[in-house]
Amino acid sequence: MTASSTGEIFPPPNSVGLVKPEICQFTQPLQLASGNVLHDWQLMIETYGKLNADASNAVLICHALSGNHHAAGYHSEEDTKPGWWDAYIGPGKPIDTRHFFVVALNNLGGCHGSTGPSSINPVTGKPFGPDFPVLTVSDWVDSQALLADRLGIQQWAAVVGGSLGGMQVLEWSLRYPQRLGHAVVVASSPKLSAQNIAFNEVARQAIMSDPDFRDGRYQEAEVIPRHGVALARMVGHITYLSEHSMGEKFGRDLRTDKLNYGYDVDFQVESYLRYQGKSFSERFDANTYLLMTKALDYFDPAEAFDGDLVKALAPIQCRFLVVSFSTDWRFSPRHSEELVNALTAAQKRVSYARIKSPHGHDAFLIPDQRYEAVFTAYMQRVAKETRQGEVS
Amino acid sequence: MTASSTGEIFPPPNSVGLVKPEICQFTQPLQLASGNVLHDWQLMIETYGKLNADASNAVLICHALSGNHHAAGYHSEEDTKPGWWDAYIGPGKPIDTRHFFVVALNNLGGCHGSTGPSSINPVTGKPFGPDFPVLTVSDWVDSQALLADRLGIQQWAAVVGGSLGGMQVLEWSLRYPQRLGHAVVVASSPKLSAQNIAFNEVARQAIMSDPDFRDGRYQEAEVIPRHGVALARMVGHITYLSEHSMGEKFGRDLRTDKLNYGYDVDFQVESYLRYQGKSFSERFDANTYLLMTKALDYFDPAEAFDGDLVKALAPIQCRFLVVSFSTDWRFSPRHSEELVNALTAAQKRVSYARIKSPHGHDAFLIPDQRYEAVFTAYMQRVAKETRQGEVS
Repeated sequence: MTASSTGEIFPPPNSVGLVKPEICQFTQPLQLASGNVLHDWQLMIETYGKLNADASNAVLICHALSGNHHAAGYHSEEDTKPGWWDAYIGPGKPIDTRHFFVVALNNLGGCHGSTGPSSINPVTGKPFGPDFPVLTVSDWVDSQALLADRLGIQQWAAVVGGSLGGMQVLEWSLRYPQRLGHAVVVASSPKLSAQNIAFNEVARQAIMSDPDFRDGRYQEAEVIPRHGVALARMVGHITYLSEHSMGEKFGRDLRTDKLNYGYDVDFQVESYLRYQGKSFSERFDANTYLLMTKALDYFDPAEAFDGDLVKALAPIQCRFLVVSFSTDWRFSPRHSEELVNALTAAQKRVSYARIKSPHGHDAFLIPDQRYEAVFTAYMQRVAKETRQGEVS
Repeated sequence: MTASSTGEIFPPPNSVGLVKPEICQFTQPLQLASGNVLHDWQLMIETYGKLNADASNAVLICHALSGNHHAAGYHSEEDTKPGWWDAYIGPGKPIDTRHFFVVALNNLGGCHGSTGPSSINPVTGKPFGPDFPVLTVSDWVDSQALLADRLGIQQWAAVVGGSLGGMQVLEWSLRYPQRLGHAVVVASSPKLSAQNIAFNEVARQAIMSDPDFRDGRYQEAEVIPRHGVALARMVGHITYLSEHSMGEKFGRDLRTDKLNYGYDVDFQVESYLRYQGKSFSERFDANTYLLMTKALDYFDPAEAFDGDLVKALAPIQCRFLVVSFSTDWRFSPRHSEELVNALTAAQKRVSYARIKSPHGHDAFLIPDQRYEAVFTAYMQRVAKETRQGEVS
């Protein structure tokens, strides 16, 4: 621990502290759902905690649409914010790094160091851009299985994720049923609704109709489709918050003391959204955004079983914790309950918690006593099994 | 009645039949909330039914964001669709044209014949474009009061409207309390929530960031910000439908028999939304869209009373019918109930119906037995008063 210039102690209590991303290179060809094959690819990862002797204490964290490998801790003492799930990963936190070896990665197709649209295409020597193949949740899980091999992890103690991350967790349980002990699916869905797809399509159209998108070759043209990405994020952001939480946060507060009678910002909520959109457009790749939304749209494990999710779930061997949030309207509790009911009908072991929260979809990222309690209790059970494994 | 080439009888039963828009010119200066004044302005209107001798049977129809004066009937026998509220206006319909003289108009600032941003600015000889003043709901009501004067209507039997139209109805009851007998407010709100404003802001940003918007002077440049308007409409359209109705209509149906693994249309809902956006962008003016959304955002009669809606409602003399729809999430029943509760607390006379409907916000436009029954019963009471007026 050191004291920073502002006098605050670094790292904060219960933090994993300073962490360092690592690159994992792969030369195994990755066969994709689209029919394409990725040769030579890499994943950017972070790990927290220590892998135990029999490699039975590993937890995989799967990220959501705009997430990445930096799930917990800090990259430097100057960082003003920790990783995106720091509230739930660390010593004494639900995913307790005193017990677990935690692996977080940037998904393939991402824009934070893993191979994706902004990487150089070895065939052309230029960025892939729109030539980067569309990926699916199952492609991600296949790449994560190769990562597990690389790290010497035969079976994850748990695979954990929220939102799009939760879909990866479900896919793990179906595709590699023997390679995980527990599945923790938070604020997620076994498939998108028409409304979910519609919002994604608006985001894609916003990006693709920005003249600076240049059919996805903006990187070569040294421009960025800023307006399109900002708009996509603004739409997305509205769906992450509940009407109630937006109301509490902004209400009808004006930015200045009177109306403009013009088309500039009048209300605080407009200013906030514009800022969110702008700052996102400066840090997130447009082609990756498109790719992530398509992976969301395509996910539907029941599809191959004529829409029968119960049948689709037959291969599952692990236990499930499913968590939803009362005011989440992006993936409302009904989405989680569809999964829970199907798991139950398929005679799988599942615990379900519907958490009362005002924070909408974003609740899965935000500290909340009840959510923490449920999450901690479940992960302590997982930890206990892991320790028994060590002894036996 | 005539038989069309397709063998269908024209007009259909209970239709007001062929109708003709009329222009009403005004030279009274209209003082606007923004401080601007409109000299020489016009309203495009339609009327159905006949004004009775004491002008006591007149009903004013106020339109919503993208509405206009063509509320019922047909402009020609070739029209494939009638006016936007034809399901509720006509002989034997809730607003029964056998009893009522119905007046519908295109609001000032509109793009269907009333003076608006695409009209010629007499000062410059060019289209107003962005120089057209931002209007408020109270400006519209003032212009409608001058229209009532012109038509010789001292008091409306009822002022009726859905969504943004309902806001105009409420404003009528506050601004000209003696000039209406009844207020019918459907699927509306006494003020937008932060989330409502946020969606409007996304729509505005989509339009204003389209390079063809040209700071609002696209008409002079002979271009149209099509992509921006289409995006705005796509976002709006999602908020008009319920998640359930989108699911029923489209589900996850694919447009062809397999996924594209590209960024083209995969799902029917995407194709539908793109079509809705495109066709809207060909018929609706971008500056009018901006203006309408700002009028929505600004409306808040309680604001001048420190947010106390009960106090704001003190001037009201008319009776109210308020209708909401169970799956409307743009203006959820809570919005209507805020108004109903305040009317009750202010000791005003109000009937309230929360109609169970799967159709979201659009329900106010769609035939529905229960909604029709409530609406008809209420308007029959209004008609009865009107007839008593005639006799006395």
